[in-house]
Amino acid sequence: MDVRARSAERMSRAAAGAAAEGLGAIVVGPSPDLAYLTGYDPPPFERPTVLVLRPDRDPTLVVPQLERALAAVSGAGDLAELATWRDGSNPYEVIARVLPKDGRIGISDRAWAVHVLGVQAAAPALSWTSASPVLAPLRARKDPDELDALRRAGAAADATFDAICGMGLAGRTERDVAEDLARLLVEHGHDSVDFTIVASGPNGASPHHEPGSRRIALGDPVVLDFGGSVDGYFSDTTRTVVVGDAPEGLEDVFALVHEAQGAGVETVRPGVPIQDVDRAARAVIAAGGFGDRFIHRTGHGIGREVHEPPYAVEGDQTVLEPGMTFSVEPGIYLEGRFGVRIEDIVAVTDDGVERLNRSSRDLRVVE
Amino acid sequence: MDVRARSAERMSRAAAGAAAEGLGAIVVGPSPDLAYLTGYDPPPFERPTVLVLRPDRDPTLVVPQLERALAAVSGAGDLAELATWRDGSNPYEVIARVLPKDGRIGISDRAWAVHVLGVQAAAPALSWTSASPVLAPLRARKDPDELDALRRAGAAADATFDAICGMGLAGRTERDVAEDLARLLVEHGHDSVDFTIVASGPNGASPHHEPGSRRIALGDPVVLDFGGSVDGYFSDTTRTVVVGDAPEGLEDVFALVHEAQGAGVETVRPGVPIQDVDRAARAVIAAGGFGDRFIHRTGHGIGREVHEPPYAVEGDQTVLEPGMTFSVEPGIYLEGRFGVRIEDIVAVTDDGVERLNRSSRDLRVVE
Repeated sequence: MDVRARSAERMSRAAAGAAAEGLGAIVVGPSPDLAYLTGYDPPPFERPTVLVLRPDRDPTLVVPQLERALAAVSGAGDLAELATWRDGSNPYEVIARVLPKDGRIGISDRAWAVHVLGVQAAAPALSWTSASPVLAPLRARKDPDELDALRRAGAAADATFDAICGMGLAGRTERDVAEDLARLLVEHGHDSVDFTIVASGPNGASPHHEPGSRRIALGDPVVLDFGGSVDGYFSDTTRTVVVGDAPEGLEDVFALVHEAQGAGVETVRPGVPIQDVDRAARAVIAAGGFGDRFIHRTGHGIGREVHEPPYAVEGDQTVLEPGMTFSVEPGIYLEGRFGVRIEDIVAVTDDGVERLNRSSRDLRVVE
Repeated sequence: MDVRARSAERMSRAAAGAAAEGLGAIVVGPSPDLAYLTGYDPPPFERPTVLVLRPDRDPTLVVPQLERALAAVSGAGDLAELATWRDGSNPYEVIARVLPKDGRIGISDRAWAVHVLGVQAAAPALSWTSASPVLAPLRARKDPDELDALRRAGAAADATFDAICGMGLAGRTERDVAEDLARLLVEHGHDSVDFTIVASGPNGASPHHEPGSRRIALGDPVVLDFGGSVDGYFSDTTRTVVVGDAPEGLEDVFALVHEAQGAGVETVRPGVPIQDVDRAARAVIAAGGFGDRFIHRTGHGIGREVHEPPYAVEGDQTVLEPGMTFSVEPGIYLEGRFGVRIEDIVAVTDDGVERLNRSSRDLRVVE
C-alpha cells in the first residue's frame, strides 16, 4: 500500500472510531498521532496546526498561512482540505468553524494547553475529552512494516549493550559511559538517540537517574537503560550489570527481578488484559518481600513514542491483540544501596509473544 | 545570586503575579517555564509532573514516585515540597489536593492536553486560563546572564553564516547545505542545533521550507534561516543570499525587505508597544506594493524558547522594556519565483536597541 493510501485508511478508521466513541470530531495537533495519521510531522508550536477528523465530513488540516506550502509539499494537502489562518487573527475561530456546533470532541493527548484553552473558549458549547480511546487502539496494533522497524531497533539496542559491556565500566564516570551509549546506538543503526540512563551503585535506586560525575567502582551494580529510534520507531532496553564482585544482597534481588520479568513475559498472549502482565511480575517481587520497592508500573506501549498506550499497570484492561508491542521491565530499588531493572520489548504474536530484545538477561559481570 | 536563590525569587515573583492576575494558583508542567522557575527540566511525559505555585502557600512539586529522587537531586526538592503519586493511582487527584477549592487557575502553555483534561475533571469547580500573563512578562525581561548567553548565541550564528557563504552553494543540494549549517552551528559554539532552513529558488516562497533534494543553481536566491542554543538560550537569524547573478526582480524586493527590517529595528526602544515594530516594517512593504506577500508577523520573543512572548504582531500591545529580546524578520514571498527574509535578534536597551546579529544585511553574492 502506498503512503497516501495508508494515511487515508488510517484517517478513515480514526473517523469511524470517533463515531463509535460518540465523538463529533477528533482534533489532532503536531505529535506522533498526526505523523501516524497523515505523514505530516511539524514540530508543535505556539501557532496551532490541527487535523480535524469528523465522521460526517472529509478531513481538514488547519495550518498557519506561512506553513501552507510546507503542509502541501508533505502530501497532507492531498489527504485533507487545507484551511489557513494568518498571524494576528484568531486561529481558534478557524478551528471552531470546522467543528460540529455541539457535542463531545476528542483532542490528541500531546496538544498544548494554550491550544486546548483556545478552542474551549472559541467553541464553548463543546465538551472535550482525550482522543486516545480512538487513536491508541489504532496505533497499538503495529502493521508488519512497523514491527520490522521495532525489531531492527531492538537488535540495534542489543548490539549496543554488548559493545558497552566490552568496553568496561570500572573507573569511568556515568556521563562518560552515557556518551558512549549514545554513540554506539547510532553506530549500530539508530537514527537518533532518545535517552541513556547510567545509574551506578546507590544511583541505581533512582529509576530515571540522570547520569553524572559519579565514577563507577568495583562492586557497583550499574543499571543501563537506553534507546533511540530506527525509521521513527523506538528501542528501549534495560540491563543491570555488576562491575567485579557483586555486593551483598545483589544476587538475590537480581534473581527476583529476573524471575519477575520472565513471569511478566510469559503472561503475554492474545486475549489477556495487559494489567495481568503487571500482576504476574508484581506477584513474584511481592512474594520475595520487595513489593514496596517495585515503585513503578511493569511496562508501557512503544512505537512512534517511547511511552504510549497501553500500559502494563493495574487498571489498564486493554486486551492484548497480535501486533501490540510494549516493555516488560520490573525493578527493585533499594535507597542508598542499588537498583535492579531488566527490560525487554515484546510483541504479541498470533498465539503468544516474541521478544524484540535478545541480549542475555543473566547477571553479567563486566570489568 | 546563586541558582537556588534565583529560582526562589522567580517563584516568588510568579506567585505574586498570580495574585495580581486574580489566579488562585499557577500549574507549570515540564517546559522552559518550569526550567526557568526551578532549574528542573525533565522531558514532558504521560506521567504528569507539575509545579503548583499559590500566592498563599509554599510551592509544591507534584512528581511521579519513580522520579522523586531525580527531582530531589536536581535541587527542586530544596525549593518546593515534593508530593508524589504512584503508577496506577490518579495523579490528577493529587494535583487537585494542592489547588484551591474554587476560582481561576493558570496553566503553562505547553502542558499536554491529557493533563489539562485530567485536572479539569479532577477539580470541576475550577476554571482554567493560560499562565502566560503571569510567566511571560517575567521571562521576557532577560537578566544580564541571559543577555550574555543570547549575545554569544547571536555571535555564533553570525560566524556560521560567514562560514557557510565561504563554502559556496552552487551545485549542492539544500539538504547538504543544511547539514553543513548544523555542523557549523556546533563548531562555532552552539550546544545544540534547533533548525536549519535552506530554501532555494522557488522554495524560498515557503517560509518554513524543509530542505530537500533540490540542487542550488546559478541565479538562485537562497534563504538561510538557522539557530540553536548556547547555555539554554537560542539564536535565530536569517539571511537571503544570491548565487551568481540576481534574477529579475530580486534586487528591488531585497531592497524593500532590507528597508522594512531597518524600519522595524529603528522602532525598538522602551515604552513602545511591540505591535509598532510590526506596523513599521509592514508599512514599508505595503508601500512597495507587496503587502499581501508578507504573510507572517514581523517577529517573536526569544530566550529559552525560539518562539516565546511577546510577538511583533498587530494586537500584541506588550510595552517594550529594557532586557526584552525578539526577532525582527520581515519577508516577501513570491510563489513560483523566490522569497526574501532578513532576520536579526534585537535586545531592548535602556534607551534604544542592540542588534545581537551583526553579519552584513546587504545582498551577498555567493558562489
